[in-house]
Amino acid sequence: MLYVYAPEQGDLYVSLLRPALPGWRIGAWPEPVDPETVTHVAAWAPPPGLFAPFGQLRTVFNLGAGVDALLRRDDLPASVEIVRLTDAGMAAQMTEYCLYGVLHWQREMDAYRRQQAEGVWVQRQTRLRADVRVGILGLGELGGRVARDLSGMGYRVSGWSRGPRALDGIVCRHGDDGLAETLAASDVVFCVLPATAATRHLLDAARLDCLPEGAALINAGRGSLIDEAALLARLDDGRLRFAMLDVFSEEPLPADHPFWCHPRVIMTPHVAADTVPAEAVRQIAARLGGGEAIPSGRIDRQRGY
Amino acid sequence: MLYVYAPEQGDLYVSLLRPALPGWRIGAWPEPVDPETVTHVAAWAPPPGLFAPFGQLRTVFNLGAGVDALLRRDDLPASVEIVRLTDAGMAAQMTEYCLYGVLHWQREMDAYRRQQAEGVWVQRQTRLRADVRVGILGLGELGGRVARDLSGMGYRVSGWSRGPRALDGIVCRHGDDGLAETLAASDVVFCVLPATAATRHLLDAARLDCLPEGAALINAGRGSLIDEAALLARLDDGRLRFAMLDVFSEEPLPADHPFWCHPRVIMTPHVAADTVPAEAVRQIAARLGGGEAIPSGRIDRQRGY
Repeated sequence: MLYVYAPEQGDLYVSLLRPALPGWRIGAWPEPVDPETVTHVAAWAPPPGLFAPFGQLRTVFNLGAGVDALLRRDDLPASVEIVRLTDAGMAAQMTEYCLYGVLHWQREMDAYRRQQAEGVWVQRQTRLRADVRVGILGLGELGGRVARDLSGMGYRVSGWSRGPRALDGIVCRHGDDGLAETLAASDVVFCVLPATAATRHLLDAARLDCLPEGAALINAGRGSLIDEAALLARLDDGRLRFAMLDVFSEEPLPADHPFWCHPRVIMTPHVAADTVPAEAVRQIAARLGGGEAIPSGRIDRQRGY
Repeated sequence: MLYVYAPEQGDLYVSLLRPALPGWRIGAWPEPVDPETVTHVAAWAPPPGLFAPFGQLRTVFNLGAGVDALLRRDDLPASVEIVRLTDAGMAAQMTEYCLYGVLHWQREMDAYRRQQAEGVWVQRQTRLRADVRVGILGLGELGGRVARDLSGMGYRVSGWSRGPRALDGIVCRHGDDGLAETLAASDVVFCVLPATAATRHLLDAARLDCLPEGAALINAGRGSLIDEAALLARLDDGRLRFAMLDVFSEEPLPADHPFWCHPRVIMTPHVAADTVPAEAVRQIAARLGGGEAIPSGRIDRQRGY
């Protein structure tokens, strides 16, 4: 049996999965099930202990991009396979999120917002796309697509990843030196790295100081990537023009956190990219129906993504 | 002689025009000239009376998109040809401006900005590009390109123009009925029409009421297109989610105008699309150097654009 945990979208998933997997029994939380019949789960942010009763569990499909929370759980034995969906409509949304922040910087919407509040009518010099340097940190399924989309629009895109990667027509760097170089050559940095032991506080005070004065930072990866106190200091003194943040070291962001009312912070509540249910179902059905495999969807627990 | 009026960019234009037009004498305001030698002028927002002394003037190249102000002047006899540059880098900027407003609506950045101010962490339902209906009013050089760009990105684009036009893969309407229909079927409307007698207050109270509840309006054409009082009323009562305005019936916008501090207005000071000097020079040189003609650049004074 395939059991779905997706609060508020459970019925939607069931209605899409049933016709796609005619041979399967399908149910969704909070509907009760006999735990011994559950062999597969598709879940978005499952609560602690959800998997514990499922003694026959073989595979978990993750209905989001980041698998870090799944890997930290104690109710998923190593024998259970964790599968991440490929893109599932998320890459297009990541491009939109990144593009909004890039346009905000390029077209100086932050400055014009301030001017509007102060009643100031001043025209600022136009910047062309070819003169805007966008650095993409993370060149997997999502980051690679964002890099290609923005490059195709005419922005000067470069990319960084932990190990070497190649993308047509895009300068790609890797490793520690490559990161400092990428940051130094970026007006806008877009982070879409996974949360692993190796990426924790990757952007600390020293790395943030590699960015040119007046740069902007967009984070749609994980909150743990950034030393938030160091980021705050660089927003306070205006070294960085703004940060657009979708993810935080603690979510929901605590009520007393200075990001909430910081004039240089644009905050969204972890919504940069949602799984598109119809696409997720297409991929799960392809896998379970015995058809095409999901390319590179299986998580390497050692590597952490 | 070719005389340039482009305050703050005069030297830049001269330095670009000299190598491009080796046979020509070229000067720029405020450098004094013998007015009888001036046969051609390239100008951006020339002050009243600028052209009066130029008895031999044959052609004015307009270094902007809108020619309405040139047509209203009394120092340009009918014998003087007015030439508008084709695009000149402006269309790409119009796409950026429109796209920022469309993303602001699609990704609910207005709602998230409000939530941030109020300390609220609530995730809103994702909307896909294919579910966002964008209506483009004005399908000339600029609007046509914006329509094609957004359609190419996957938005559901339709267009409207005064007379019939056809754009591949885009629903195009025209005339009075076509306008009401286009408005009724648009979540976001982008205006890039010229200011003519026929377009004055084209979007009046009745037309604005054709828009679906919660729609947004972007105006990068001319302030005269919109009945600003009617628009304000529909922003005040929340019928329209927001307006993004680059142009106003009076510019600079008067200090006491309610747009300045309206929570549903994003204001920019007439910067949606600037002429790119290098591209303007390429076109002027092509025309004056006897090479390729500027397609459809000559203004019809009767029609007004």
